[in-house]
Amino acid sequence: MKIELASSYGFCFGVKRAIRIAEEHKGSKTYGPLIHNKDEINRLKEGFNIGLAESLNDIDADDSVVIRTHGIPKHELAVLNKQNNKVIDATCPYVTTPQQIVEKMSEEGYSIVIFGDKNHPEIKGVVSYAVNPKDAFIVLESDELEDLPLSSKVALVSQTTRKPEDFLKIVNALILTRKEVRVFNTICNATFENQDAAAELAKRADVMIVIGGKHSSNTKQLHSICKRDCEDSYLIENEEELDPSWFEGKKLCGISAGASTPDWVVQNVINKIESMKK
Amino acid sequence: MKIELASSYGFCFGVKRAIRIAEEHKGSKTYGPLIHNKDEINRLKEGFNIGLAESLNDIDADDSVVIRTHGIPKHELAVLNKQNNKVIDATCPYVTTPQQIVEKMSEEGYSIVIFGDKNHPEIKGVVSYAVNPKDAFIVLESDELEDLPLSSKVALVSQTTRKPEDFLKIVNALILTRKEVRVFNTICNATFENQDAAAELAKRADVMIVIGGKHSSNTKQLHSICKRDCEDSYLIENEEELDPSWFEGKKLCGISAGASTPDWVVQNVINKIESMKK
Repeated sequence: MKIELASSYGFCFGVKRAIRIAEEHKGSKTYGPLIHNKDEINRLKEGFNIGLAESLNDIDADDSVVIRTHGIPKHELAVLNKQNNKVIDATCPYVTTPQQIVEKMSEEGYSIVIFGDKNHPEIKGVVSYAVNPKDAFIVLESDELEDLPLSSKVALVSQTTRKPEDFLKIVNALILTRKEVRVFNTICNATFENQDAAAELAKRADVMIVIGGKHSSNTKQLHSICKRDCEDSYLIENEEELDPSWFEGKKLCGISAGASTPDWVVQNVINKIESMKK
Repeated sequence: MKIELASSYGFCFGVKRAIRIAEEHKGSKTYGPLIHNKDEINRLKEGFNIGLAESLNDIDADDSVVIRTHGIPKHELAVLNKQNNKVIDATCPYVTTPQQIVEKMSEEGYSIVIFGDKNHPEIKGVVSYAVNPKDAFIVLESDELEDLPLSSKVALVSQTTRKPEDFLKIVNALILTRKEVRVFNTICNATFENQDAAAELAKRADVMIVIGGKHSSNTKQLHSICKRDCEDSYLIENEEELDPSWFEGKKLCGISAGASTPDWVVQNVINKIESMKK
């Protein structure tokens, strides 16, 4: 039996980069968890002495602070700088972009519309860059636009993890009612890359292993996508759940992993499957 | 029987303005017909000595030239200026806007996409304002975008008379594939104002008279819209086609007119209906 990894799986570019940055700064603290995976947080703690600050109160004056992929609000960054903390910026470049756009467009007098969840850390960071907070609005549905005091010139950005088709609904509602809408497509397609790669592999594989949290929505989605083309698709959290009977008589075993699954967990699964073949 | 005019009918703002400008410049020539209505062209000829130049060759060095609502290409304007013609600009302000946008966005390095008909005089004028003609494209369908060498920053304008829902198809196709799309909604809603006003009136009237060319698509559309709510809706070109039997026992006669129908034709129809009531 051949084992093949999906061409895209697991951590996205930004998370991989943030973990590498943290590893390069032993003894620092991350402001908020770098990733929703306790095993990976523990690995960074044990191997690199990376601490975790849940709030600004947990950060002491001499701490080196890693900003995670989501970024942080401008005023919190100002607090860290004022405290003379060493700030290590691991904000995903795909998140830095909408922050910079909001700042620039706001300076140029555009009303700002942000398509996203106002409670999400990424969005709290992005909106903080508007120079005129009263002229920046966060919406999730197009009907929320109706009552907003927007000017005739609007700049629009999206939370990086939103679906393009939902973004277009906001775009369309704005365009029919405003003179100029400056649309910045800041959606990151990492989520869809993993899904597309898993679907492609599932079409060829006769057994698929999807690795990730049983309660992770993106992992469950990967699993259901694989099921469509490969009935023998299994969702597991780690190698201990593997069952040798799954691989009997199979020719191609495909592997995919959710966005919070570290590579070493994936590697452990592959090693265990290899050993079962013997 | 009461007679009521639709709240919006006939010539749009830009055409009314262009005719007023022509009347204020007796003895001038229009470059291209001001409107697709021979009676109105004749009235301007007889009452104000307004001539008609079908091409630049018909324009002599000492002519005063009225630019019609569609505007003209930049290089033709340069020819008129070089010949020392007196140029009287009756370009509709709603058309001047996309011309200026294309010039400015093109100077700022945006690829230009114009949603419209490349053979329409308005579009020939608008596209001529791109400082880099190789980076300006005219499309009518979203699939035409696929093969265009557009940069990651695109500015989009529309022919003023296009339908908003068709414009959105172009917008949506661009947004999913470009970093920034600067959308300028340059659609003029005059056409829809006449339609909305006719529909509203047809709901209350028990006979509707729609005045306009039998082959004019916008007049035929007005007629069919009226028919939906008022079965006794008639399309006529002038007062001579009126039939007294249409008004027998009616309480409210609604009137609308196509975009190329002069007000004096409408007034002649109203006068004739008034006389029939007696």
